[in-house]
Amino acid sequence: MIDDIVDGFAFGGDYNPEQWTEDVWIEDMKLMNRAGVNLVSLGIFSWAKLEPEEGRYDFTWLDRVMNLLTEYNIKADLATATAAQPNWMSVKYPQVMAVDEKGLRYTWGSRQAYCPNSLIYRRGAAAMTRMLAEHYAAHPALAMWHVNNEYACHVQRCYCDTCAAEFRVWLEKRYGDLDGVNETWGTAFWSQNYSDWAEVMPPRYTSAFRNPNQQLDYDRFMSDSILSLFIAERNILHQVTPNLKVTTNFMPLFKHLDYWKWAEEIDIISWDSYPDPHDPLSPVMNAFDHDLMRSLGAGKPFMLMEQAAGRVNWRPVNGMKHEGLMRFHSFQALSHGADAVMYFQWRQSRRGSEQFHSAMLPHAGEGSRTFSEITRLGAELKALSALAGSRIESQVGLFFDYDSWWASEMETAVTAAYPYVEEPLHWYRSLRERNVPVDMVSPKTDFSSYKVLIMPRMFVIDALPASRLESWVENGGVLLLGPMSAWLDGTGAVHPGGAPGPLRTLAGVRVEDVDPLPPGTSFSVDFGDGRPLAARNWREEIYAEGAEVLAVYADGPLNGGPAVTSHTRGRGQTRYVSFRPGPEAMDRILDPVLERAGVTGLLETPPGVYAARRIGVDGRSRLFLLREGEGRSDVRLPVEGFTDAVDGRQVGQVLSLGSWDARVLNEPD
Amino acid sequence: MIDDIVDGFAFGGDYNPEQWTEDVWIEDMKLMNRAGVNLVSLGIFSWAKLEPEEGRYDFTWLDRVMNLLTEYNIKADLATATAAQPNWMSVKYPQVMAVDEKGLRYTWGSRQAYCPNSLIYRRGAAAMTRMLAEHYAAHPALAMWHVNNEYACHVQRCYCDTCAAEFRVWLEKRYGDLDGVNETWGTAFWSQNYSDWAEVMPPRYTSAFRNPNQQLDYDRFMSDSILSLFIAERNILHQVTPNLKVTTNFMPLFKHLDYWKWAEEIDIISWDSYPDPHDPLSPVMNAFDHDLMRSLGAGKPFMLMEQAAGRVNWRPVNGMKHEGLMRFHSFQALSHGADAVMYFQWRQSRRGSEQFHSAMLPHAGEGSRTFSEITRLGAELKALSALAGSRIESQVGLFFDYDSWWASEMETAVTAAYPYVEEPLHWYRSLRERNVPVDMVSPKTDFSSYKVLIMPRMFVIDALPASRLESWVENGGVLLLGPMSAWLDGTGAVHPGGAPGPLRTLAGVRVEDVDPLPPGTSFSVDFGDGRPLAARNWREEIYAEGAEVLAVYADGPLNGGPAVTSHTRGRGQTRYVSFRPGPEAMDRILDPVLERAGVTGLLETPPGVYAARRIGVDGRSRLFLLREGEGRSDVRLPVEGFTDAVDGRQVGQVLSLGSWDARVLNEPD
Amino acid sequence: MIDDIVDGFAFGGDYNPEQWTEDVWIEDMKLMNRAGVNLVSLGIFSWAKLEPEEGRYDFTWLDRVMNLLTEYNIKADLATATAAQPNWMSVKYPQVMAVDEKGLRYTWGSRQAYCPNSLIYRRGAAAMTRMLAEHYAAHPALAMWHVNNEYACHVQRCYCDTCAAEFRVWLEKRYGDLDGVNETWGTAFWSQNYSDWAEVMPPRYTSAFRNPNQQLDYDRFMSDSILSLFIAERNILHQVTPNLKVTTNFMPLFKHLDYWKWAEEIDIISWDSYPDPHDPLSPVMNAFDHDLMRSLGAGKPFMLMEQAAGRVNWRPVNGMKHEGLMRFHSFQALSHGADAVMYFQWRQSRRGSEQFHSAMLPHAGEGSRTFSEITRLGAELKALSALAGSRIESQVGLFFDYDSWWASEMETAVTAAYPYVEEPLHWYRSLRERNVPVDMVSPKTDFSSYKVLIMPRMFVIDALPASRLESWVENGGVLLLGPMSAWLDGTGAVHPGGAPGPLRTLAGVRVEDVDPLPPGTSFSVDFGDGRPLAARNWREEIYAEGAEVLAVYADGPLNGGPAVTSHTRGRGQTRYVSFRPGPEAMDRILDPVLERAGVTGLLETPPGVYAARRIGVDGRSRLFLLREGEGRSDVRLPVEGFTDAVDGRQVGQVLSLGSWDARVLNEPD
Repeated sequence: MIDDIVDGFAFGGDYNPEQWTEDVWIEDMKLMNRAGVNLVSLGIFSWAKLEPEEGRYDFTWLDRVMNLLTEYNIKADLATATAAQPNWMSVKYPQVMAVDEKGLRYTWGSRQAYCPNSLIYRRGAAAMTRMLAEHYAAHPALAMWHVNNEYACHVQRCYCDTCAAEFRVWLEKRYGDLDGVNETWGTAFWSQNYSDWAEVMPPRYTSAFRNPNQQLDYDRFMSDSILSLFIAERNILHQVTPNLKVTTNFMPLFKHLDYWKWAEEIDIISWDSYPDPHDPLSPVMNAFDHDLMRSLGAGKPFMLMEQAAGRVNWRPVNGMKHEGLMRFHSFQALSHGADAVMYFQWRQSRRGSEQFHSAMLPHAGEGSRTFSEITRLGAELKALSALAGSRIESQVGLFFDYDSWWASEMETAVTAAYPYVEEPLHWYRSLRERNVPVDMVSPKTDFSSYKVLIMPRMFVIDALPASRLESWVENGGVLLLGPMSAWLDGTGAVHPGGAPGPLRTLAGVRVEDVDPLPPGTSFSVDFGDGRPLAARNWREEIYAEGAEVLAVYADGPLNGGPAVTSHTRGRGQTRYVSFRPGPEAMDRILDPVLERAGVTGLLETPPGVYAARRIGVDGRSRLFLLREGEGRSDVRLPVEGFTDAVDGRQVGQVLSLGSWDARVLNEPD
Repeated sequence: MIDDIVDGFAFGGDYNPEQWTEDVWIEDMKLMNRAGVNLVSLGIFSWAKLEPEEGRYDFTWLDRVMNLLTEYNIKADLATATAAQPNWMSVKYPQVMAVDEKGLRYTWGSRQAYCPNSLIYRRGAAAMTRMLAEHYAAHPALAMWHVNNEYACHVQRCYCDTCAAEFRVWLEKRYGDLDGVNETWGTAFWSQNYSDWAEVMPPRYTSAFRNPNQQLDYDRFMSDSILSLFIAERNILHQVTPNLKVTTNFMPLFKHLDYWKWAEEIDIISWDSYPDPHDPLSPVMNAFDHDLMRSLGAGKPFMLMEQAAGRVNWRPVNGMKHEGLMRFHSFQALSHGADAVMYFQWRQSRRGSEQFHSAMLPHAGEGSRTFSEITRLGAELKALSALAGSRIESQVGLFFDYDSWWASEMETAVTAAYPYVEEPLHWYRSLRERNVPVDMVSPKTDFSSYKVLIMPRMFVIDALPASRLESWVENGGVLLLGPMSAWLDGTGAVHPGGAPGPLRTLAGVRVEDVDPLPPGTSFSVDFGDGRPLAARNWREEIYAEGAEVLAVYADGPLNGGPAVTSHTRGRGQTRYVSFRPGPEAMDRILDPVLERAGVTGLLETPPGVYAARRIGVDGRSRLFLLREGEGRSDVRLPVEGFTDAVDGRQVGQVLSLGSWDARVLNEPD
Repeated sequence: MIDDIVDGFAFGGDYNPEQWTEDVWIEDMKLMNRAGVNLVSLGIFSWAKLEPEEGRYDFTWLDRVMNLLTEYNIKADLATATAAQPNWMSVKYPQVMAVDEKGLRYTWGSRQAYCPNSLIYRRGAAAMTRMLAEHYAAHPALAMWHVNNEYACHVQRCYCDTCAAEFRVWLEKRYGDLDGVNETWGTAFWSQNYSDWAEVMPPRYTSAFRNPNQQLDYDRFMSDSILSLFIAERNILHQVTPNLKVTTNFMPLFKHLDYWKWAEEIDIISWDSYPDPHDPLSPVMNAFDHDLMRSLGAGKPFMLMEQAAGRVNWRPVNGMKHEGLMRFHSFQALSHGADAVMYFQWRQSRRGSEQFHSAMLPHAGEGSRTFSEITRLGAELKALSALAGSRIESQVGLFFDYDSWWASEMETAVTAAYPYVEEPLHWYRSLRERNVPVDMVSPKTDFSSYKVLIMPRMFVIDALPASRLESWVENGGVLLLGPMSAWLDGTGAVHPGGAPGPLRTLAGVRVEDVDPLPPGTSFSVDFGDGRPLAARNWREEIYAEGAEVLAVYADGPLNGGPAVTSHTRGRGQTRYVSFRPGPEAMDRILDPVLERAGVTGLLETPPGVYAARRIGVDGRSRLFLLREGEGRSDVRLPVEGFTDAVDGRQVGQVLSLGSWDARVLNEPD
């Protein structure tokens, strides 16, 4: 695997042996060996067992586990155990518990209920991290560090007085003085002027809408506060074990942390993937997330740190993973650049909050269908070891931006009916259907090598990227802007003169207004051939200021007005799409753009089959084919000479894939 | 305009210059002049800027604004700036903040979070009002006073200890002693007897249903508490500037304040109109509200104090106002008797909670479609100046009653599924389709001159009106009662003997029970011709006690039972309608009533076109024609000789109106 | 009636005379006599009137009522008046009020807001009970005792510190020490280890899922806490009046109290039935509840303690009871074994929270349709007196289990989308359509005499019943298991080896996983004839381990896998049904089982007509026929010679029943 954590792909799961007696541990080791497990995430929720009372540490049981792992040749992704503080801490120091926006303090008895700015929590976490690092620094089983767990999963925002005080510090650093805060938040309106720092608060429970600029800053402050928890532990780990990589596990399409900013601090990106078997959109969302994770790590292989071997237990309806689905999800991860296939958790709990969450080794035991699927997958991954470390190449960049997510979903923004992520997902889906590899990009990304850039609802944009985008377009790039682009500057203030703010000149359009329609509302656009094509949900009243009109609205109050425009600059173009295109309209928008930019898909595949390519460190490339959904499809390969990467056997030029099938092929040289 | 506030119609909007630097103010003035603005509502949220610390007032910036207005010949509807207290007050005196029913105190950072009974707030508001009044009493720009803003919009009820204490005072004044409270609230049931005043509380968070009589009194107490805020400021203003009119802006279909009681205290009625462009019912609701506002002012012209030039930002989906819609809404206001067309706000905010709420001058600036529509409208209004002060004549009165609203929507009343306002709206819609002008009336209204009175769900009724109604009917009036009429007396107790209580004799029916059906449920009634007509939602088991049965139920468990009855008394009649009629049934009910009473519509118009008439102070009348919805309709005028009131040109006898068109015609003498 | 409370059936209602002046009481007595009322539930909410200040008791008014009852020959089901404490207690001792999971304390002004573990409440309730018992012990009107009212209706769980302390006591008694708690709750996971008793808390507001084992214990603890309130009052009553029966009124399909455990402490079961007239499922749910109540009382006749004469006032839509429906409900109660038909309440309130809840004597008075129906029913019941005390015989037992209800609806269990009660109801409905009498059984029930046992979602099962079930099956019983059977042991831990845990051997199947589908999802099963039959909502991946496969899944990912199995043991069989059968599949499952077990329905009836039989103390049996719904149906009786039990007249062999009709027939000997 990347960073030499294990040989080949990592395979294993969260291991919580403290739930079991020691005789079970031996059975665990033997079954892990049988399944091909080579890495376990250990001790994530062990704080109470490792520090049973304040300042008294007891690592003896963990020593035994670590030694057993060594004995059975399994590596540890050792956790800092700080994901949930012990009850004694919560009882002795109540201020360690987070407080909700109404001022109600959480209690213990669940997990992650700490205030991110609690000094007590931070002191305890640092001490635990240092004790573990020093104790296990030289242990042969230790392969990497796992800090905390799913930061902010349950407590996204704390509103306590400690956080209020830290927020003021953060604001003072950002704006210099209180005048800066008043100016940025626009407090002259609604009589909100702050005349003393002590008046400045988190956006707590109040009578009506809260100030959106204050909320945007609080979103940023909380992401930063929680990030500083990670950094504090990581610094200790780097100091004690400078050669070991440190990760923390991200979550799918997670709004509350700016993962771009976080990724800069993390050695290896890892994340937890829980696609809903009953949601037909879950494969595309999962693919999107995989690409985001790879992009967060600047293209380096990432770790699928958690997935479920079967059902989860936290949805309203927790669908089963029928035979083959878990394997499909695992190969999907690999096809997007993962070097690890890991699970929550190894052995299913008999008690506690996750007793009904599946595991690699379920209640039904080693004779179960699930465990035999795990074992078969372990063997396949071993056969594919040579792929580990291989990478993905993309020519299309898709902007994904947390400021835009936060700001465009404010209760006082244009509409609360359309989630931000629907917009990038909508474009992504169409690119994926064409087997066009996509990277997600942020305003800080060096996007010079991409041929196409797509900006769906890039609601917040600063002046800086405008000039960079202009140069990139002049050099031949094709930029696609979606509705609600570039309304706000970095302080959350509306760009004067109307959207798309600093991109108006580049796009050659001015947006007068946006018309969000009730969800599901359909209307028509016309690309000049008199054939109305369906569009949905959003439309905008735009005026061409230099741009060519490619399509117009074909009904409703905007009938005849511009709907899609194109503006040439240098060798490139900027296209503005002012609505949410339906499938045919999307073809009419996307295909010419890809063609002009010289971007082609990897392979033509029948509906439901997706292709991906990883290029190995040896320069050889492998083709992934994934059959999403029930039924059978035949894929025609471009040439003869492909071989199966698992068993090495030759495959015919027409390959047949069954329900939820996945294949990896060595491409002929 | 009425009361000589400005010449002709008032045109302008909320002006919040403290958001902008002074150079922008000059631009504002010039653009206001260009648009024809003659009145602005100034300083509504300026408290923090006008009293930056406790007791220190700084009016210098407002002086500059007022002087600029004078210079540019624009008048000020000057606010008392008390709509949101400054943060320093909330921090220094936490008890100024309102408390919710669970005992949680709101925090600052939004607006209007004050407790209506807070002495601190009241002292500060009174001081600010007096300072402003004395400072600007003689200022040439000052034309009228605007107290607070949208009272109770966000804090309808406060449950703090101050309010509890004031509630006891209010109750003692009403009932004399605690026995009176126990008697009225029926505390003998559920062991709720109060043995000490200290036990009496607002209807706070509790385990099950709260006492409905206590809640009804708390609704009244809170409306009175907030009204006393208005009165306190108004008294100061009247004392300092006895010749100036005072208003506060009402809200559409607003449940929480008894506007009839409020209207007695207000010099000129004004209100804020925000029809949802995506709701097909919004034009009729808007028309209803306009008529209510005119009726609250006893028929005097009222002010449309706020509307949006485009989108609002507080709905789940905030629909755009496409070209023409804002003009339609403006003419709709005039057609119902408004003498002012005003907006929130003049210039769109770049920051803060309303940065995405449209304005007369949007982010896109003076070149925008919106601003050019504003400018055109300003010119039209100027051309129509002679209409200002004209009035509406109605022969039909529709009861609208806040006690009935409050009591019939209690969680323990008959059903929570049907909002009160649906009932008057249902009748109103049918009258509007016939172009029959309607006034809303209250039990205190002198209704002697109306020919028809409609009482839809007049749930609460005292003995007094019964005798007044009897005389009115005897003198030839036709009274229409809807389901759920006259169940309670003024104390919230059920009239003994069953509904419609004191109106049983007049109506000649007894209601055994009501059967609220699941929303949308349809059933049939038969008017004696064997043709079942659709009805919905509500039906009642009634027994004729002297009344003639005009229609019976035609299916379901009440099959064959009376559904509509008529009872003659003197020269008049009382009809009881025990269900919610569908369109055909409504025709069968309403047309004979109007015919009998000699009430006819103003004009026959095609569907979607509505007519209204204003009769000028000069005795001349103008006909309004409004085309609601997309498409084109031809209206045939009764005679030749109409001229367009804007440009004076002759119009043909058949007038063609396009989408959302509005025309004003001088009627031939 | 059973227990000689009154002669024949009890008929009457809650009587709350403190709402009225004494002249009304006399009218009440006369009208009660006219209606045939022989029992009233008196003083349920009279605490504040009986103890107007702390320690001062005033029973004079109640004496007068009791004497009046004696005079008019009406008996009293006298309440202990503890259902709602007086306000003075709540004000003086705030800790008497319950606290919600967020730590917010309820206030007074409603009812039942007390903390079940409050010592103040308990002391006051015990004193009141003793005072009443001693005062009225020898009163001739006193027939039985009514403790409190609808325990836990509004306050199911209190989370205050008193409850926390009592919870620790309860846990220590159950588990011996803190290690036992940690072990049972699985606190080794999520760092939840308790190192001190003071850390142990109710499952209060926290950041994420709460521990399910802790919640299960809290459910049990709260049921026990509230039960101990009942026991405390009952003990006093038994001591003072050892010959009188004590009841408390249960509620329909009520989750929060373990009624099996409660029933052991109660002399005579009574309950409150409020079927929704608008819900087509309400008759079957009502039938289910009646059978449950009879079963809770081990087959003894029970009391219908409350029903509504007309509308209730606490639903979103409160449907009317049209003519005949109240009589239908009353006879339905009798047909399932009730010996009492009682109402809430006698005279409709004019004020307070139930002013819109119907009563035997409604606002419309004695001339009303409702009161005349009451009077007719009273006469019918009198004519049927000989039936009182008769019983029902059943050969089918249906498991109904509160632990399974609580545990399977946990937020962290398999799915929150399917309520527990749907499962037993689904089987019950099919048995009812066959006129097969059903008893509900608990794990403690002696089920040896049943021929068929059905276990729908018996999620929690201990080892003990497994061996009892095995013997019973060996002796010829047919056991039907539904999905989600036997997952947990009594401590809430998953049975190792997979479901159905200790019943795996008996059933001959192993459950690999369950697949809950989105509500309403349909799929197919095949009983071997190639004809796919519809099933819904739930399916399971099961493996036959010795069982014969009777049906397989016919589509979807489990296609071809076992769906229904049968396993023979001794003279009996165990059938496992791994899905929710649709109507046809249900026939294919149920009919062979009933046939094999020799169970037949009482009578073949057309759809919508249901039959029941009560066997009198004299050995004679009566047949009940109930026509559910609108329309007319003819029922063919098996033989001639039936007579009407009300009027004694001969009936023909074909009996015609109209809408909502109900008949009782004397069966020929």
